[in-house]
Amino acid sequence: MLDRLKEEVYQANLDLPKYGLVKFTWGNVSACDRDSGLFVIKPSGIAYDQLSAKDMVVVNFDGEVVEGEFSPSSDTATHAVLYKHFEEIGGISHSHSMWATVWAQAGLDLPAMGTTHADTFYGAVPCARFLTEEEVNRGYEVETGKLIIETFEKRNLDVMAVPGVLLQGHGPFTWGKDAKSAVTNSVILDEVAKMNLFAKQLNEFAEPLPQRILDKHYLRKHGKHAYYGQKPST
Amino acid sequence: MLDRLKEEVYQANLDLPKYGLVKFTWGNVSACDRDSGLFVIKPSGIAYDQLSAKDMVVVNFDGEVVEGEFSPSSDTATHAVLYKHFEEIGGISHSHSMWATVWAQAGLDLPAMGTTHADTFYGAVPCARFLTEEEVNRGYEVETGKLIIETFEKRNLDVMAVPGVLLQGHGPFTWGKDAKSAVTNSVILDEVAKMNLFAKQLNEFAEPLPQRILDKHYLRKHGKHAYYGQKPST
Amino acid sequence: MLDRLKEEVYQANLDLPKYGLVKFTWGNVSACDRDSGLFVIKPSGIAYDQLSAKDMVVVNFDGEVVEGEFSPSSDTATHAVLYKHFEEIGGISHSHSMWATVWAQAGLDLPAMGTTHADTFYGAVPCARFLTEEEVNRGYEVETGKLIIETFEKRNLDVMAVPGVLLQGHGPFTWGKDAKSAVTNSVILDEVAKMNLFAKQLNEFAEPLPQRILDKHYLRKHGKHAYYGQKPST
Amino acid sequence: MLDRLKEEVYQANLDLPKYGLVKFTWGNVSACDRDSGLFVIKPSGIAYDQLSAKDMVVVNFDGEVVEGEFSPSSDTATHAVLYKHFEEIGGISHSHSMWATVWAQAGLDLPAMGTTHADTFYGAVPCARFLTEEEVNRGYEVETGKLIIETFEKRNLDVMAVPGVLLQGHGPFTWGKDAKSAVTNSVILDEVAKMNLFAKQLNEFAEPLPQRILDKHYLRKHGKHAYYGQKPST
Repeated sequence: MLDRLKEEVYQANLDLPKYGLVKFTWGNVSACDRDSGLFVIKPSGIAYDQLSAKDMVVVNFDGEVVEGEFSPSSDTATHAVLYKHFEEIGGISHSHSMWATVWAQAGLDLPAMGTTHADTFYGAVPCARFLTEEEVNRGYEVETGKLIIETFEKRNLDVMAVPGVLLQGHGPFTWGKDAKSAVTNSVILDEVAKMNLFAKQLNEFAEPLPQRILDKHYLRKHGKHAYYGQKPST
Repeated sequence: MLDRLKEEVYQANLDLPKYGLVKFTWGNVSACDRDSGLFVIKPSGIAYDQLSAKDMVVVNFDGEVVEGEFSPSSDTATHAVLYKHFEEIGGISHSHSMWATVWAQAGLDLPAMGTTHADTFYGAVPCARFLTEEEVNRGYEVETGKLIIETFEKRNLDVMAVPGVLLQGHGPFTWGKDAKSAVTNSVILDEVAKMNLFAKQLNEFAEPLPQRILDKHYLRKHGKHAYYGQKPST
Repeated sequence: MLDRLKEEVYQANLDLPKYGLVKFTWGNVSACDRDSGLFVIKPSGIAYDQLSAKDMVVVNFDGEVVEGEFSPSSDTATHAVLYKHFEEIGGISHSHSMWATVWAQAGLDLPAMGTTHADTFYGAVPCARFLTEEEVNRGYEVETGKLIIETFEKRNLDVMAVPGVLLQGHGPFTWGKDAKSAVTNSVILDEVAKMNLFAKQLNEFAEPLPQRILDKHYLRKHGKHAYYGQKPST
Repeated sequence: MLDRLKEEVYQANLDLPKYGLVKFTWGNVSACDRDSGLFVIKPSGIAYDQLSAKDMVVVNFDGEVVEGEFSPSSDTATHAVLYKHFEEIGGISHSHSMWATVWAQAGLDLPAMGTTHADTFYGAVPCARFLTEEEVNRGYEVETGKLIIETFEKRNLDVMAVPGVLLQGHGPFTWGKDAKSAVTNSVILDEVAKMNLFAKQLNEFAEPLPQRILDKHYLRKHGKHAYYGQKPST
């Protein structure tokens, strides 16, 4: 069942330790199949070097396991809520990567301070508030997903133009058109979080990236006038 | 004698350089056998690439060598005091890992600022005071063990819920049910110490992790209602 | 066409990930052939592990592709402007390397704070201002090249004595007599940017490197009285 | 000539990049033979992967080349002055390692803030002043050596109890009984420089390591009552 997607999700999970984003069994990546309304996610708490593609768990958009020998990631319900609400999302990555987590623990939005940021995130990456007592009791993981939706709606953000969020006191979620791009965005978010932290330390009065440069860099890589990379026909 | 335990302790010692926690011969890991009232520890000052499992030294809970060709770690007496007092502890790890040592040198408790911390440490990791002149003269390593006990008793901490301590001006000790988990806790402590340092730098007014989130994260991984990872039957 | 130069440029591009200066497809290195008035540059957005020397693109000093299956780097026009104006430059390297980018995002010149800097850069590395709205609209990459020229002319800097620049909010460009030395200068710039950041944090009143030491270190490696390294005849 | 020493010096030089202390051809390690009054040092500006033991250069204590195909390190005269003056020194290592250089560029002594420091350096590592114009003109490298001697004499320091120095605006020199221990001390100095930097940032009012702990840690590893490591007979 969904064997090709399982392989993609498995490979994308391996990219988390490869890029230094996780230690031990931390982190989880998933990808969805819109036709069947299902997604594939890493099992919970299994070491990366003991995983194989067939261990990936198949889950529906209500977070119910459809196929799989193992229990899925403890964050599965968060993934499910996001796939159900945001139809553009094809893959999701969660980690406690060092520098994005530093911003999350500081409880601050990650501002667009440079073109490395602007190449991928079209503006600040928002930091979502702590869950309330009531939300925690109602269901921590489902409510985390709902909070991400709330955060993007309140700020009127395009989920594909800003493909990530920081959860206060916790860490980042990123997403993309598939599992691989979700992890790529995790790597970039962490890199930018590190750059911006030290740039802010070096000059607390540093000017933010002007809108004209933000536009230029984002739009030369994204949208119909993009000219970065090779044309599809190549 | 205790060959299986020696192998476990040997492997756990090798994890110290593997995870970047030590340089040269620094650091030492031990594990105990409650039935015989003995523990196994790394010999002192021997390079990691020249160690083998059979070089591990067997010691009793009074710190006396029972078997072994080499002198045990110079910190052996500290391990002995901890095993003797805390019956839950099965393994102990000591290093001068960078970021935990930074907090130790700063003389500060490591506060619970994020869920990465809460997943393993149920609250702040305490920083124990400097030993007094009298304590140093009486026996540095034994008194270090007693100071750790004093620190946990004064603060009324559960040694397994907060499986680590910082020694002011020195570095961390961590422990767990066995040698491997003791080292895992060293890795996590160092990771969290780094995150928390930079989060504090980024926002000195960052809110501490609310108790509800600390509870949620700690208890979804520990205790009878835990749901992280795979069920034992799997 | 220019096969030897393509090989040099290909190898120099591989040095960017080797020295940890780039992630993914970021970064681009070129080198020019003064006789033919052409330069060779990396294609845009192709993964480093899928590149080969023959994929390098040949471009003239007006930024027009002369030979190549792929589209050249999106920053090609910046390279072209620099080769056309500065006849001493044989190779150019661009990346978003962490620490040089931190200074660029802070919008600050990188001062000469130590001999590691003075061994390669004969004085501060300038930070060029943001492009204006008009410049962005006129042509982002061409104008970036012109801005670098403006920056060096306004400050009366020798482009080979200070072989690099920071672009505000963006990142560094470095250059040298060939592709290899351009990348070497990128590595050194990033190393120095890191040193200087933390030295400034440690002591905001640190004395700048005295001119006599700056002279000594730069001139023992460069110019006709240099005595570092081996004599050409060796 | 001195083949065994050349091999030791060659291996110790390779340890500089192995431990991440140098990039490119930076850094140089030497060791001396007290019987012949000669020392062996790395040639200048040759890449580490192109070196072999036979390329090492033999020099006398006046800095004159006695044997060798290549020019010796440009810092050779500094090594010579130190060997001539300090008869206890058997090996010397020089690098621009990141964190020691940060302290050198900040122009500050590296204080003993923790036991990692105390295990090797019996007190603060001094930062020597900038050379004067006159000294630079008289002979930069010879005067650097004399300045190190002046620094240790003025402060009445034992060169073997504090086996290293920071040169303001430049970087560290360390030494030891042989080439290997000189490099080991470089590694430790850099590690401690990093720890102390961040500990100071975390708590600017952190207490210095009390003398009783400094004594305990230094003396359990050094001198006739040392009990760290294995007895020589083992």
